[in-house]
Amino acid sequence: MSLSTASATLLSRLAAVLPARALLTDPGQLAAHARDSAPFSEYGTPAAVVVPRSVKQVEQVMALAYEAGVPVVPQGARTGLAGAANAVDGCLVLSLAAMDRILEIDPANRLVRCEPGVVTKHLAEAVAEHGLSYPPDPASWERCTVGGNIATGAGGICCVKYGVTADYVLGLDLVLPDGRRMRTGHDTVKGVAGYDLTHLIVGSEGTLAVVVGATLALRPARPPALSLLAQFPTLTAAGDAVAEITAAGHAPSALELLDRATSDAVVAYGHPLLKAGSAATLIVECDSADPAADLTAIEALCRAAGAENVETAADGDAARSIIEARRLVGPALAAYAATKGDAMTSFIEDVAVPRSQLARFVGLIEDIAAHHRLTVFTLGHAGDGNLHPTVVFDESDPDEFRRAQTAYDDIMAAGLALGGTSTGEHGIGTLKRDWLERELGPVSLELQRGLKRLFDPKNLLNPGKVVTA
Amino acid sequence: MSLSTASATLLSRLAAVLPARALLTDPGQLAAHARDSAPFSEYGTPAAVVVPRSVKQVEQVMALAYEAGVPVVPQGARTGLAGAANAVDGCLVLSLAAMDRILEIDPANRLVRCEPGVVTKHLAEAVAEHGLSYPPDPASWERCTVGGNIATGAGGICCVKYGVTADYVLGLDLVLPDGRRMRTGHDTVKGVAGYDLTHLIVGSEGTLAVVVGATLALRPARPPALSLLAQFPTLTAAGDAVAEITAAGHAPSALELLDRATSDAVVAYGHPLLKAGSAATLIVECDSADPAADLTAIEALCRAAGAENVETAADGDAARSIIEARRLVGPALAAYAATKGDAMTSFIEDVAVPRSQLARFVGLIEDIAAHHRLTVFTLGHAGDGNLHPTVVFDESDPDEFRRAQTAYDDIMAAGLALGGTSTGEHGIGTLKRDWLERELGPVSLELQRGLKRLFDPKNLLNPGKVVTA
Repeated sequence: MSLSTASATLLSRLAAVLPARALLTDPGQLAAHARDSAPFSEYGTPAAVVVPRSVKQVEQVMALAYEAGVPVVPQGARTGLAGAANAVDGCLVLSLAAMDRILEIDPANRLVRCEPGVVTKHLAEAVAEHGLSYPPDPASWERCTVGGNIATGAGGICCVKYGVTADYVLGLDLVLPDGRRMRTGHDTVKGVAGYDLTHLIVGSEGTLAVVVGATLALRPARPPALSLLAQFPTLTAAGDAVAEITAAGHAPSALELLDRATSDAVVAYGHPLLKAGSAATLIVECDSADPAADLTAIEALCRAAGAENVETAADGDAARSIIEARRLVGPALAAYAATKGDAMTSFIEDVAVPRSQLARFVGLIEDIAAHHRLTVFTLGHAGDGNLHPTVVFDESDPDEFRRAQTAYDDIMAAGLALGGTSTGEHGIGTLKRDWLERELGPVSLELQRGLKRLFDPKNLLNPGKVVTA
Repeated sequence: MSLSTASATLLSRLAAVLPARALLTDPGQLAAHARDSAPFSEYGTPAAVVVPRSVKQVEQVMALAYEAGVPVVPQGARTGLAGAANAVDGCLVLSLAAMDRILEIDPANRLVRCEPGVVTKHLAEAVAEHGLSYPPDPASWERCTVGGNIATGAGGICCVKYGVTADYVLGLDLVLPDGRRMRTGHDTVKGVAGYDLTHLIVGSEGTLAVVVGATLALRPARPPALSLLAQFPTLTAAGDAVAEITAAGHAPSALELLDRATSDAVVAYGHPLLKAGSAATLIVECDSADPAADLTAIEALCRAAGAENVETAADGDAARSIIEARRLVGPALAAYAATKGDAMTSFIEDVAVPRSQLARFVGLIEDIAAHHRLTVFTLGHAGDGNLHPTVVFDESDPDEFRRAQTAYDDIMAAGLALGGTSTGEHGIGTLKRDWLERELGPVSLELQRGLKRLFDPKNLLNPGKVVTA
């Protein structure tokens, strides 16, 4: 039976068990669910989009799709940057976006139980009403979902102090590719009963099981933060400052680096404190018990490392203005691209290197950009060595397109050569599958493929992502 | 070919490739390596003990044992409490104790690379010389090894603030059951490249692969700590105090509970500050930026919850004296057992429940002890709901032995009924294999067994631990 025949049979069966609003087949809706936010990544056209409202419905959908042999691609908010949520031709897209209930906030045990479609920001706001915090803050946190964060192993800015999504996942409710339900982990802070399936699922990009519920650890509310901005004449000086801040035992809640191009783009877009022409800008936020004292010490370290423009916030308003410089990077790059023409596009990289290699890596990226005659904007999480070089290029120009793709490869190779990893927080998806094979080597890759077969023997759940079967 | 014939062939092959000191066959040495520190757990007699000094030797041993079909049981310091390091008859015991080198301490990236046989205390002391800390502090930290900590997913006292061993493992060097080598994880703070094999290995009790090297994250040195001791007239009052300390957002570096029997045993053994007859004793340590202020606030919360005896340390000496009360529990229980005769033995439980169920669980344990006419000493990590009820009983008395075993089952059942897990930090080994099956359910168990088969298709690496193949 061809996939299209199988899909047609499946759709009629799904229509019999699902409410009409849960099954979308309009071409516009199919197109809207075809891909996530990754560039360069292949995607197909789904046969239908299913929007379940309950775990029971997910079980039904998975069991029927399994029986029919139709691939299923889970999706959250499609803000991912690696193609992990991209449809394959003839698949069912399983959108978890409507399963967006917070089931229980438990302050006594500092945990929350929720469905996968809860928007990260909504979760953070809801627990804040109980004096608690859910720290993970990926850039898309106002739109992305907790289920997507779990699937990609999402990071964010404050994870330099508070850790990544994986650090908050205590237990998961799952539906397996054949429709069976299971639970991993525990509702306790500690637990070592059996192999850790929970963290095997985190970051598995919806290829092993569908996350239909999560138990997440919470923390006490974060104290008010202060921040500073420091601009440096050389990348080395900024790298030295990061090393000194780390060596002194400070634990900033943000430690962000903007390279020359990025910093100048934000200046051009408009920011009152940032000055043009610096080789590197650091933005440091502290939410410790005494952030003013910490920032005074950090300011001294930045100046000793050679900072030429340092602005330290004395109050919350000034602190927010400084953090705004980081938030403006997206709009500033979009504005830059707009000045260059309609066909400009960008891709954002996600290589992580050992913290001590940070300045060297930024320098290598600048060399790669110059070599390929491209503009690369590098910003990133300096505190944990995770950089996001962004290449803005004209996709209507075949030569520039080719140079952009080559630069992407060169940047990844440079990061790996420095002891880094091909993805710090965005994931593999389809975009970096070849790079994963290079990074892991054959023995690990064989086990990774074995894991995929163990959970999904028919290769029907999000096929082609992370590893090929 | 019988296992004994296979073992004999293997031993001659091993003797050809290993130095003489690396291959032990003396019956006394075999007996010394037959089991870890768990009671009630089955164990066999190894055919030999291999003590490799290099990764290359481990590869050779594993490849030869795989070819010969001889089971291999990895061991660290045999301080484990679940039988996970127990020999099976005719196996090779693979002792990693002599691979005890710290390979690199990297302050700039706050990480350390080491071999598995490094004693946890030695690692902590070595990194302290660089102004860094490796926090995990299982009770056996002066003797246990980092490899054993990784294998069991060890916890400790300070993990209420600093997390467990799993939180520090960035990457692992492994030798697979067939002798092939591979690496998991990364030397970077963040990384999501592929399925998380690193945390699949942590806590897998040497059943999936042999850990031959680890890259561990470090933290800045811990600030000086202060502590307090508070005694309560009821368990409920102590439970309320724990809840209030948590709700107020304090982050103590130790939050330990001693029940009436444990507290009184320490009083009898001799401690200057502890008073007899309290239903529950809390020991709280803070190593925050201002521990005195935190402890003043915590003292007020304890008094408001009904504490009748509160001692708050004003300096480091007093703080150490308070913490001594926790450290004396082991010697105090040993002294208690000695007064009851030569045949007294004890087993230590490891159930974790949601923090809010702590007082209720301790009360249920006291009921179970009374019902079975046993003395149960409960102490544990109140801050994360992980309790260690210890039953001291006369193993020469068949009736008391039976009652002790039944109490063990009753305590586990009570913990699971409260939403807990059968093991917070000691692991499954052979001791809790049946309980794991109850806790996980059939679907999860099927996947756990599939994982074992994926890594170890011949079921030769530490067979019978965690899950049966």
